[in-house]
Amino acid sequence: MSGPDGIVRIFDTTMRDGEQASRINLNTGEKIQIARQLERLGVDIIEAGFPAASPGDYDAVLNVAREVETPVVAGLARTREHDITVAGDALKGAAHPRIHVFIATSPIHMEYKLKLTPAEVLREVERGVSLAKGIVDDVEFSAEDASRSDIDFLTEVFTCAIDRGATTLNIPDTVGYAMPAEFEEFCRTIINRVGRDGVVWSVHCHNDLGLGVANSLAAVRGGARQVECTINGLGERAGNASMEEIVMSLRTRADHFGADTRIDTTKFYGTSKLVSLLTGVSVQPNKAIVGINAFSHEAGIHQHGMLCNKATYEIMTPESVGAPGTDLHLGKHSGRHAFNERVEKLGYQLTDEQSRAAFELFKDLCDKKKDVSDGDIEALLMDRVVQVTPERRYELKDYTVTVGSGGKPTASITLSHGGAETTEASVGNGPVDAAYKAILKILGFSPELAEFRIRATSELADALGEARVILRYKDIKAQGRGASTDIIEATISAYVEAVNRLYSFAAAKEVVI
Amino acid sequence: MSGPDGIVRIFDTTMRDGEQASRINLNTGEKIQIARQLERLGVDIIEAGFPAASPGDYDAVLNVAREVETPVVAGLARTREHDITVAGDALKGAAHPRIHVFIATSPIHMEYKLKLTPAEVLREVERGVSLAKGIVDDVEFSAEDASRSDIDFLTEVFTCAIDRGATTLNIPDTVGYAMPAEFEEFCRTIINRVGRDGVVWSVHCHNDLGLGVANSLAAVRGGARQVECTINGLGERAGNASMEEIVMSLRTRADHFGADTRIDTTKFYGTSKLVSLLTGVSVQPNKAIVGINAFSHEAGIHQHGMLCNKATYEIMTPESVGAPGTDLHLGKHSGRHAFNERVEKLGYQLTDEQSRAAFELFKDLCDKKKDVSDGDIEALLMDRVVQVTPERRYELKDYTVTVGSGGKPTASITLSHGGAETTEASVGNGPVDAAYKAILKILGFSPELAEFRIRATSELADALGEARVILRYKDIKAQGRGASTDIIEATISAYVEAVNRLYSFAAAKEVVI
Repeated sequence: MSGPDGIVRIFDTTMRDGEQASRINLNTGEKIQIARQLERLGVDIIEAGFPAASPGDYDAVLNVAREVETPVVAGLARTREHDITVAGDALKGAAHPRIHVFIATSPIHMEYKLKLTPAEVLREVERGVSLAKGIVDDVEFSAEDASRSDIDFLTEVFTCAIDRGATTLNIPDTVGYAMPAEFEEFCRTIINRVGRDGVVWSVHCHNDLGLGVANSLAAVRGGARQVECTINGLGERAGNASMEEIVMSLRTRADHFGADTRIDTTKFYGTSKLVSLLTGVSVQPNKAIVGINAFSHEAGIHQHGMLCNKATYEIMTPESVGAPGTDLHLGKHSGRHAFNERVEKLGYQLTDEQSRAAFELFKDLCDKKKDVSDGDIEALLMDRVVQVTPERRYELKDYTVTVGSGGKPTASITLSHGGAETTEASVGNGPVDAAYKAILKILGFSPELAEFRIRATSELADALGEARVILRYKDIKAQGRGASTDIIEATISAYVEAVNRLYSFAAAKEVVI
Repeated sequence: MSGPDGIVRIFDTTMRDGEQASRINLNTGEKIQIARQLERLGVDIIEAGFPAASPGDYDAVLNVAREVETPVVAGLARTREHDITVAGDALKGAAHPRIHVFIATSPIHMEYKLKLTPAEVLREVERGVSLAKGIVDDVEFSAEDASRSDIDFLTEVFTCAIDRGATTLNIPDTVGYAMPAEFEEFCRTIINRVGRDGVVWSVHCHNDLGLGVANSLAAVRGGARQVECTINGLGERAGNASMEEIVMSLRTRADHFGADTRIDTTKFYGTSKLVSLLTGVSVQPNKAIVGINAFSHEAGIHQHGMLCNKATYEIMTPESVGAPGTDLHLGKHSGRHAFNERVEKLGYQLTDEQSRAAFELFKDLCDKKKDVSDGDIEALLMDRVVQVTPERRYELKDYTVTVGSGGKPTASITLSHGGAETTEASVGNGPVDAAYKAILKILGFSPELAEFRIRATSELADALGEARVILRYKDIKAQGRGASTDIIEATISAYVEAVNRLYSFAAAKEVVI
């Protein structure tokens, strides 16, 4: 057997394992935005979803498969015939389709979850991989909970998967239990025991104890040449290994690993922001590589050192991961070119029509405020350009909200629907509560408010206020976002948007509201 | 030389390295809240600050030293006489004082930052450690940027520090450059070469490549028996190794490490929340151990597995780290006992007087809304109980804010000052902008708004809105927080609070506003 090559393939599962863990599903349009950015970033494989899990997932895989050209597009499937057939169908339009078949191999998963004996699991592997190989040439096999599996059994399972045609073999640490030193040895042992040329060994590490990245890197030392990971470390529970940390470790410490990736690291910052905004999962300031503090030096001693020689406290530059400088606000004198460049840097790829619409919104905003921050631009794009609701049932026509120490918060709201306008008013425990009560009077049904979030897009008092609302009704969840220099207007817009999406999702699922 | 014992000492540096990286300094009252909670958590050493860095840091170390009984309290110092004397003074009231002396030992730090030869650095170590040992018995020595230092030189430096009386020797990975496998070997080699009994070896790992926790654990395998870390992984740039991840790794994988800590892990969740609120540094949902998603299972397959047997997808329980269940809102029927218990679980230790005041505020809030969430309680405590402004120059008497599609956002504000009331009105680009412009007219001076943040404390429309404002004037920074069911009122309160704190800080520094 020849040794592994020097390229570590990056398998992104932000839209499968990552999305699974966020509170709201990404729609197809949102997944396409992310997929385009992942392609620009240079990932080798995009896992776009689990097609058999839901029609939405199927649809997303179908559309992502058609959208991207260079990366392999993977769809996840259990060993069941239905899962594999559906995955194959969803991948029909892909330039480079991959079916990713998995089954659990640990004693606890086999006994309690699958209720299968090891021999039965082995037959499932044979059947599942053979089926997938009949549909596509590129088949990956994962042994779920591998790190808690018997190593002799795993050897048998992987050998069988390779015999049936799998060319990528994945060793997941599904529950984040492994420790780097033992995981390196575990991977090395399996790879040596199975001993086949021409296959790629992969890992997929969860972060329950904060070791997802360390375990992935340990596996690379042990011979793995594909790493499954996500932007911002999204994923079930404490998430998956974070792509940006793995890639920057390999790049910064090439001396230690002797292996590198094909990633254009300068796209990390924009990709991180895009994924954070679309999924609604925030990135903490001290997150490595992409947190807003990741390259800031606060202590006097550190600042002094940085002035003497940057290498005293900096092992990679902010520019190498696309982190913005400080001098970056746009304003009314910024032209279309500067605006488009910024939009692209922020991780968005717009159609010409979207780009024109965005520039107009930007110009409107410049009339209201002097400096337009990246956060403002993102909120604009998210609110009016990227997030498309197919049909708007209600339109916000008018609102007035008054708060003060003199009386109860009061709101009046006018919505139009089918040409007619309706106005209602209400008091409430605060301006948002009052406005939402007025809207509910107009709607005539009461969706549950499953999530409500507000934030300012920058540090200025006239920053755009951004609101995000998730409504639930009869098991349908819909999200709305709103952005405005008036935070109250943003909360109202977000609510109306969520109502409109609720109607369109309900129609698709034939649920009566 | 006998082998290391089975106890890993936890050295918390949240209030030194962690605070250093947050955008606002913690005041003494806030540091005392954190120190009390760290004592309950069971940390072995609390690094309370760097006394020579600023009068505020000196004061905080002085007060924390008097406050806690069981843990060692450490103060950081360079090898300079002034630093060490000041640290000794600040620690006078401590039951168990430690002076923590450091100097950089890497070629790049010595040449460019210190501008000293290795021989000169060695003399600094001798002098600094000897001076500290003359003041306290417990002296720790750190070789800054050790992981990029020459190992022969390090051996010499540590030997010298031990000869002069240091009993804890710290090997920092200051810039987060180390990789676990090499760092384990690096630590083992140094420990073996220096070869002394009766000292404790320590590490302090930064997280620039996401490996702070992995490197700390690798060092434990290499013989370290003290780990320097922070709650939520706070610290310069991408932060330090996260205490909760290190401790839970050692606990969950005792089989792998054969070493444990004295930490009461059930206090992690509350401690994390407290530190996050006081520092203003958020914790991302997928943060291991303390993120809100760390124990949530979203995928259908995972939920099915959890129902069959929790061990399929859970390697530790949420209870073991104090993460709350789902059924936790308090309301008007909740008594003082239930309320106090919740406050304690959230990480606060209140005096009797504070506790009475908090319970009254809670009861007032129950009149306004049915379910009071943990987030609401935290906002209350933070706004009115924990955050104490010595003297309030301005008091908010009255406000009215109107927004709507019919006209410009308009605010009128009445503040009282020295018995007199002043009212001003303004329009603005949004309700917050309008209100702040009205306040500025009253103040007659214009502090810069350095940071502005808003958030909802829970997912409900009548959640408390919380606002955080940082104002800057002539190099003085002051933070104000506000919480209310009316988000607009919260933003106004936060601003007025920040103005009051600005005045009291200016008075302390003899700056004229």
